[in-house]
Amino acid sequence: MPRMGETMHADLRPGERVLLGPGPSNVDPAVSRALSAPILGHMDPEFIAILADIAELLRRTFETSNSLTLALSATGTGGMEACLANLLEPGDRLVVGVAGYFAERAAQIGERLGAEVVRVGAPWGSAVDREAVRAALEAAPTKVLAMVHGETSTGVVQPLDGLGALAHAHEALLLVDAVASLGGVALPVDALEIDACYSGSQKCLGAPPGLAPLTLNERARAVLAARRAPVSFYFDLRLLEGYWFGTHVYHHTAPANLYYGLREALRLIGEESLLEHIARHARVQQALLEGFTALGLQPFVTVPALRLPSVTTVRIPEGIDGMAVRRALLQRDGVEIAGGLGELNGKVWRIGLMGYSCRERNVAIVLDALRRALGEQGYQAPTVRSE
Amino acid sequence: MPRMGETMHADLRPGERVLLGPGPSNVDPAVSRALSAPILGHMDPEFIAILADIAELLRRTFETSNSLTLALSATGTGGMEACLANLLEPGDRLVVGVAGYFAERAAQIGERLGAEVVRVGAPWGSAVDREAVRAALEAAPTKVLAMVHGETSTGVVQPLDGLGALAHAHEALLLVDAVASLGGVALPVDALEIDACYSGSQKCLGAPPGLAPLTLNERARAVLAARRAPVSFYFDLRLLEGYWFGTHVYHHTAPANLYYGLREALRLIGEESLLEHIARHARVQQALLEGFTALGLQPFVTVPALRLPSVTTVRIPEGIDGMAVRRALLQRDGVEIAGGLGELNGKVWRIGLMGYSCRERNVAIVLDALRRALGEQGYQAPTVRSE
Repeated sequence: MPRMGETMHADLRPGERVLLGPGPSNVDPAVSRALSAPILGHMDPEFIAILADIAELLRRTFETSNSLTLALSATGTGGMEACLANLLEPGDRLVVGVAGYFAERAAQIGERLGAEVVRVGAPWGSAVDREAVRAALEAAPTKVLAMVHGETSTGVVQPLDGLGALAHAHEALLLVDAVASLGGVALPVDALEIDACYSGSQKCLGAPPGLAPLTLNERARAVLAARRAPVSFYFDLRLLEGYWFGTHVYHHTAPANLYYGLREALRLIGEESLLEHIARHARVQQALLEGFTALGLQPFVTVPALRLPSVTTVRIPEGIDGMAVRRALLQRDGVEIAGGLGELNGKVWRIGLMGYSCRERNVAIVLDALRRALGEQGYQAPTVRSE
Repeated sequence: MPRMGETMHADLRPGERVLLGPGPSNVDPAVSRALSAPILGHMDPEFIAILADIAELLRRTFETSNSLTLALSATGTGGMEACLANLLEPGDRLVVGVAGYFAERAAQIGERLGAEVVRVGAPWGSAVDREAVRAALEAAPTKVLAMVHGETSTGVVQPLDGLGALAHAHEALLLVDAVASLGGVALPVDALEIDACYSGSQKCLGAPPGLAPLTLNERARAVLAARRAPVSFYFDLRLLEGYWFGTHVYHHTAPANLYYGLREALRLIGEESLLEHIARHARVQQALLEGFTALGLQPFVTVPALRLPSVTTVRIPEGIDGMAVRRALLQRDGVEIAGGLGELNGKVWRIGLMGYSCRERNVAIVLDALRRALGEQGYQAPTVRSE
C-alpha cells in the first residue's frame, strides 16, 4: 500500500489548451477568476442570493418565465438523468428521437429507469422526422417525448418547431436536450412550448464543466407533484426546488466555486446580449466552413440548415489517419478537437466553437493546424476552381 | 419575461468567511489558485493522468490498495447515493446504524432504491451499539450494513472496530460514510475490512465542495459485477471505473477545475503527512473544548472518546437565542457556524474545524466571537472553580 509520507506528486501545471472539441470550452478570464472567490457555505444568505441571480440569468437564457429554473450540481449527463428520472415512472412510455449518440444515451437512461422506450430513428447526420414522431405518439399513450436539440455526435441541430404542440396534442411532455445548444442557438423555451429542458455549463454558456442548468414549466411540475414512484434523492427536483426557492432546506453542499463561474459566465452573456452571443456562434461557424472549403474538406452534415452552429462535424479525408491529426494538434499546438463517437468513430472530426472558444481567432488557429497536420500526411487540398 | 439586454447583476463579490460549520471549509490559497488553472478536456491524456494522481492520493488517504478508488463528479450526498445504488438491488436488505441525520438520509435513500431497510437506532449523541447491529444481521440475510463514521449532525464518531468482520460473518458488505471524517480521523479502510466507503471533498480533505471520493474493494466490486437490476447511468461505478482506469471511454464531462482543487488539497495532506493532518484535527478540537469549558459551555457528546474531532456539537445555554448568535457571528465577524439538524434544531451549535479551517487561530476567533455574542444576550459564564 502506498504511504502518504513522501510527496511524489509535482505541482499541478495543466497545459494551456485551445479547447475546440464538443466541450469543455475555454472560459473568459473573468470566469476563471470567479472560481477562486471566497467559498460561501451553502446555507449562507449571500450564497442563496447568488443562486437566485443564477436562476434569473438562466431564465433569460432559456427565454422562459418558469419558476423552476436552476442549475443542478452535476454535469449535463446528470441533467439528462435528472429530467428523465423525475418525469418518468416505471412502465411509462418514452418516445425518443434518435439520430445520434446522445439521443441514444437518453433512450438507455429511460430503459434503466424502467420506462417503455420507443426510438424514432433517423440516419446520423440528418434530423428526426416530425411525421415519424407523430406516428410514434399516435401509436400509444406517451408520457414524455425527448428530443436532442444540438446533437454533438453528428453536428445536427434538430428543428423543434411544432413539436411542443404535437406532444401536447397527445398529452405527452416535450423534453429537450440543449446541452450543446443553449446560448449558441436560439432556444425560446416558452415560445416553443418545451416543458422541460436541460443543458451543460461548459459549452455555449462559457462556464466550467460541472453544472447542469435546467428548467421545467408548470405542466412538468404537475407531473412531479403527481408522481408515486420514488425518485433519486440526489436528483430530486422537488427537494432542489425547495432548497433554491422555498424554505432553503438543506439538500446537498452546493459546489460554490462552480456556481460563481456560472454566474459570471451568464452575466457576460447578458453584457454581450443573448442575441449577439447566438449570432456570434453562427458567424464564427461560417468562417470555419469557408476554411473547410478552401482546404477541400467536406462537412458531414450536407443540409446547411441542419448544421449545429456550436459543433461542426467534418469528414476525415480518404487515406488520412484522423487520430494522428488530432494528436498532432493537441501535442504540438495545444489545440483540442474531437473524433467521432459511435458509428462516426474514425470518420469525422468534431470541432466545437462555443462560448469563449467561439472566436474568429480560433478558426484561424484550427485551420492552420489542420492544414499543417494534413500536409504531413501528404494531403493536398484540391485546386479551387474559380466560378 | 425578463430580457437579457440590460446588465442588472453586479460583479460577484462573495464576503470573506471563516468557515467553521460542518463544511464547506476554507481552502488553502494554493487550492484556490489551482481552481483557475487552464481547463483540460475530459479525454485529454494530461487530464487522465491527473485523475490517476488523484486516485493514488486518495488510496493513501483511505489507507487502501483498492483499485476502484476515485472521486465522483457529485457532492458527498451523491457519493452516498452512488454507493447504495450500486450495491443494492430492489428487495435487498439494508441494515443502517441510525443515530443522526445523515444515517437517516442513507436509510431513506435505501428505501427510494427499493431496499428493505432496517434501522438500528441509538439516541442522538451516542454511538450505535455493536450488539444491536449483530442482532439485526442475525435476523435475516443482509446485503449491506451501512454505518456513518463521522455523524456531523451529532458530532459523534462511530467506533468501527470489528464491524467489518461482523458484517462478513453474515455475508453482508460494510459500507461506511466518511464524509466528515476522511482525513480528520484515522480510517484505515483495508485494516478495518471496510468494503465500500465514500466521502466529500469539502471537509477534512480541504478541497472545494463538488466531488465525492469513494473506494470499493474486490468484494464490493464482485457485487457490482453480479448485479442484475439496472443502476443510475450517472452513478454507474462500473462505467466510471472504465473511464478512470480502463479504456477511458467517455462517460461524462468531468469538472476539471474541481479535480485540480482536490489534487492540490490531497497533495498538501501528503506534504503535511496524513498522520500529522489527523493529529492536528484532534489537537485543535482539544483547544476548542478547553475554550468551551472556560465559557461554561457544555459539549453535547458526553463521552469524550465518541467526540468527532472534525465537528464539535455544543449545547446552546438556557435562555440564549442560538439563531441570533449565529447571525451575529456571520454578519459581524464573517464566522460561519451551524445550528442543529433535525431533533437538535435549536438545541446545539455545530462547529467544524476541518482541513484548512482546522487551525488554532480559528479556535481563538470563534471563541471570542461567541463570547461577545453571548454577552450581548446577557450570558455570564459560570465562575470556574479551581480544582
